[in-house]
Amino acid sequence: MHAYRSHTCADLTAANVGDTVRLSGWVHRIRDHGGVLFVDLRDHFGITQVLCDGDSAAFAELETVRAEWCIRIDGTVKARDPELVNPKIPTGEVEVYVREIEILGRANELPLMVFGDQEYPEETRLRYRYLDLRREAMQRNMALRSDVVASIRRRMWDKGFREYQTPIITASSPEGARDFLVPSRLHPGKFYALPQAPQQFKQLIMVSGFDKYFQIAPCFRDEDPRADRSPTDFYQLDMEMSFVEQQDVFDTIQPVLAGIFEEFGGGKKVDQVWPQISYADAALWYGTDKPDLRNPIKMQDCSEHFRGSGFAIFAKLLEQEGTQIRAIPAPGGGSRKFCDRMNAFAQKEGLPGMGYIFWREGADGMEAAGPLAKNIGPERTEAIRQQLGLGQGDAAFFLGGKPKSFERVAGKARDVIGAELNLTDQDRFAFAWIVDFPIYEKDEETGEIDFEHNPFSMPQGGMEALQGDPLAVRGYQYDLACNGYELVSGAIRNHKPEIMLKAFELAGYGEDEVKSRFGALYNAFHYGAPPHGGCAAGIDRIVMLLAETSNIREVIMFPMNQRAEDLMMQAPSDPTSDQLMELGLRVIPQE
Amino acid sequence: MHAYRSHTCADLTAANVGDTVRLSGWVHRIRDHGGVLFVDLRDHFGITQVLCDGDSAAFAELETVRAEWCIRIDGTVKARDPELVNPKIPTGEVEVYVREIEILGRANELPLMVFGDQEYPEETRLRYRYLDLRREAMQRNMALRSDVVASIRRRMWDKGFREYQTPIITASSPEGARDFLVPSRLHPGKFYALPQAPQQFKQLIMVSGFDKYFQIAPCFRDEDPRADRSPTDFYQLDMEMSFVEQQDVFDTIQPVLAGIFEEFGGGKKVDQVWPQISYADAALWYGTDKPDLRNPIKMQDCSEHFRGSGFAIFAKLLEQEGTQIRAIPAPGGGSRKFCDRMNAFAQKEGLPGMGYIFWREGADGMEAAGPLAKNIGPERTEAIRQQLGLGQGDAAFFLGGKPKSFERVAGKARDVIGAELNLTDQDRFAFAWIVDFPIYEKDEETGEIDFEHNPFSMPQGGMEALQGDPLAVRGYQYDLACNGYELVSGAIRNHKPEIMLKAFELAGYGEDEVKSRFGALYNAFHYGAPPHGGCAAGIDRIVMLLAETSNIREVIMFPMNQRAEDLMMQAPSDPTSDQLMELGLRVIPQE
Repeated sequence: MHAYRSHTCADLTAANVGDTVRLSGWVHRIRDHGGVLFVDLRDHFGITQVLCDGDSAAFAELETVRAEWCIRIDGTVKARDPELVNPKIPTGEVEVYVREIEILGRANELPLMVFGDQEYPEETRLRYRYLDLRREAMQRNMALRSDVVASIRRRMWDKGFREYQTPIITASSPEGARDFLVPSRLHPGKFYALPQAPQQFKQLIMVSGFDKYFQIAPCFRDEDPRADRSPTDFYQLDMEMSFVEQQDVFDTIQPVLAGIFEEFGGGKKVDQVWPQISYADAALWYGTDKPDLRNPIKMQDCSEHFRGSGFAIFAKLLEQEGTQIRAIPAPGGGSRKFCDRMNAFAQKEGLPGMGYIFWREGADGMEAAGPLAKNIGPERTEAIRQQLGLGQGDAAFFLGGKPKSFERVAGKARDVIGAELNLTDQDRFAFAWIVDFPIYEKDEETGEIDFEHNPFSMPQGGMEALQGDPLAVRGYQYDLACNGYELVSGAIRNHKPEIMLKAFELAGYGEDEVKSRFGALYNAFHYGAPPHGGCAAGIDRIVMLLAETSNIREVIMFPMNQRAEDLMMQAPSDPTSDQLMELGLRVIPQE
Repeated sequence: MHAYRSHTCADLTAANVGDTVRLSGWVHRIRDHGGVLFVDLRDHFGITQVLCDGDSAAFAELETVRAEWCIRIDGTVKARDPELVNPKIPTGEVEVYVREIEILGRANELPLMVFGDQEYPEETRLRYRYLDLRREAMQRNMALRSDVVASIRRRMWDKGFREYQTPIITASSPEGARDFLVPSRLHPGKFYALPQAPQQFKQLIMVSGFDKYFQIAPCFRDEDPRADRSPTDFYQLDMEMSFVEQQDVFDTIQPVLAGIFEEFGGGKKVDQVWPQISYADAALWYGTDKPDLRNPIKMQDCSEHFRGSGFAIFAKLLEQEGTQIRAIPAPGGGSRKFCDRMNAFAQKEGLPGMGYIFWREGADGMEAAGPLAKNIGPERTEAIRQQLGLGQGDAAFFLGGKPKSFERVAGKARDVIGAELNLTDQDRFAFAWIVDFPIYEKDEETGEIDFEHNPFSMPQGGMEALQGDPLAVRGYQYDLACNGYELVSGAIRNHKPEIMLKAFELAGYGEDEVKSRFGALYNAFHYGAPPHGGCAAGIDRIVMLLAETSNIREVIMFPMNQRAEDLMMQAPSDPTSDQLMELGLRVIPQE
């Protein structure tokens, strides 16, 4: 017989009754029923009940065993009495009478229990991660992550992509975030950097003629702490294709991602139609470039109804250039109580409040209520109602000013309204491509033009477009939003060196700077670069959506805490003076 | 029609004759046959011949095109004249008459040619890697690497393993080599390290109850330059299993690796029987712990034949304790010329020489020749011949002393003899498990005991074995040799904290040091650790064997040069003073 097990703890059924078996696993739970010890023996695969009484030679030793000890038992499979059958587990029809036991690994007093659902502080969970990971939810999350990544790989292979590994110890890649640096020993005083993303490498792979690339790629950013991201690194499905346009990328990645959500989404509906919404429309309709389309609410421009109206605040506002009044329709929100609550929400978000109108049953049928309706009069109120397609029992909220000043809050209000009115379908994954991102944005304070998003994207209209107003230039650049999260970001790249130079010039980068900061790519584009494009999808985010958690540490095996410390491994730590000497470095004493 | 291609450059056949098609790719070769331009248009998939004459509107523009320009053409598929069919390529029956051309990416004068087999200095190849990678051999090697890794993943999944990612930014893991350090910004003066291997993490994954783990894992070691390894990082198939013994690991990994060599080995024979050879036997028989079993030569201990013999050098040597005389049989090497050449080889390797005997046709049948035979006389010579199973036309070489002093050279001599006498089958992959490694070794100079190999292995005999002579302790530790290379290394791990402490104590590490250097593992072993073991297989090495190259840079997309520099990306480089300030570091000026 095998040294440790003839079966896993998920294997035994009524068909095994009478068999002599060997099992290994952890003591999940131990109960003493008056001279009979019952142990739920757990391994990665399942749980089997084993038991022992004073007639067994193993009894005395089994009595010493405690929760989470690792043991091996030999015994005989018995059928459970019909009334004791546990239909919830595959092994629920049987139990194993223990004849021999071997203690494989003892356990000290436990800092956290594996059995049960008790909550523990994150510090405890991360310090004793090897115990935390034994808990059912963590076993499930880690298996899910692994299976999702495996399925992504299979799907990409099936589409003719090969996975190529790009360097992890490489050059600084100034892509917006902070690099992690790695001091060089062979070249003291010089530093490598960990890649923020394989962006330049995947483009170089295209210039190298590989046609299709993907990678489950680790990306490293020295970020300041935030709950939903790792402070050090994250993984992305990184992909790139040559000789493609934007729609080709969409057509390639949509079935991969839709397939993943269908396979692992627990039966939730996965939208098959992924609308393409321009960045400008997304801002207008949803107040964000990562809209949650499960929520049917679509905001609208209602400026015309307020221009010159009796509602002086809006009327005055509209006299300023670049201002708008936008409406958030709230079907089913037609009560003063609800409207007041939403108004309070807007105030908490730092706005003076949200005007509203709601439609209720009045003496002569439907009537519009709320201060706004009174101020603008019934004709305008009715025109608004018709534009928004609302009726009795519904409401609409209004925000005004320069869109940038209220869009974010409007988007949040839309989320809250959708949730509170149960308009947002929880059992669904809804996707939208956000397209036509502006290439540039103007810094409100300095007035300077800088890249809005990714400096490597091809401007729509090419060189010609760059001769006009930079703020009017759109890129072949896109995001994929899913349920309110940005899941994917990508672009058709700028593969022409002269357009690259011009694009950077508009953002204030001289030729020398482009050559020194993006030299590899710039040089490579002088040797027959193909048109190419691609995208990157956040693995951690996908798994978080599927695992229904908003804490990234629930889907990473050994995460850092929010202070970028590994409490289990004790990192970071002090270097030895020999190490510093070899690297030619000195630590500046901190005050 | 698609913006860039209706077909790839490998798609068109006689069935397409008459079709209007669109192709994109690189100008592989361009020839002007008196007013007709012929271009071999190449993409990742293949080559298609396209042509153009003055009747085409595209002619003038095609005339401007040079090698490695990236172009798109529209044209009509024509059958080639029967005598011009190229049977070597799938598109060889057709050519495309160009009607329209678009230049997608121009190329400067090329620093290296993609077409042809010209050799270039490695510096040039790495600086212009995106051109180098377009060459046929590099396209093939990169695809091979990707396909090997994909196949490994499929095979591991099929065996019930899941891939779990372990941290890349983590704590220093003192495993023999030098760590790459990563300074922490949030904790100035403290450093993370890149993992030399996921050894501790995979063991922690076992303690966490995951049963089976694998990972295509990047490993980082700050190594001094050597031709056959990367100076910064390498990839391994890392795997670990719980509740297993050594044979279970062998039974799991052998079919995976055998399958890979069968799938990608180009039809070479893949041995199905993988002998298990003890470390001691491997040293005796092959002079190395990574023997090349394609070579049938097995060395033997011939000490008894020389003890007290007339060959004074060996006879005297054998009076010292711990000495031996070993023979390297050389079937077919029975000529003075060959024996002299091998003797010269040994001298070049720093030994005084190798004694030899060879058997030739003499006046009365077979006779033994060489100085050694004369000195020890016919009886001993004949006994040696019989022990070694040699005959006329064969030879034997002899080395003497303490085995450690000549084993390495003996092993090399065995390789050379096998190669020179054509005994080594080149069309074969031959594997051997090397087992029973000693846990400890004695430093010849200091006399101190240290770990021979991996400090985490379980000693055979457990705690009891550690009470006796440390140098006699063998571990459940193993390597896999293939064709003279170490392909895999692994062990059943020491999962008992008390045995771990004792094992480290024998190597001179106190309890405090174990706790501080291997704290996570040591702590985890106090919470119900399962017996576990596994191994790691070198991905780069496997691909090198399959690609028949001994230069690791031929199987890595963007490698460092041997001075650990990335010439394309210009790494490492000077940090900015802001970066250093944020990290709390100062660079010590170098003399």
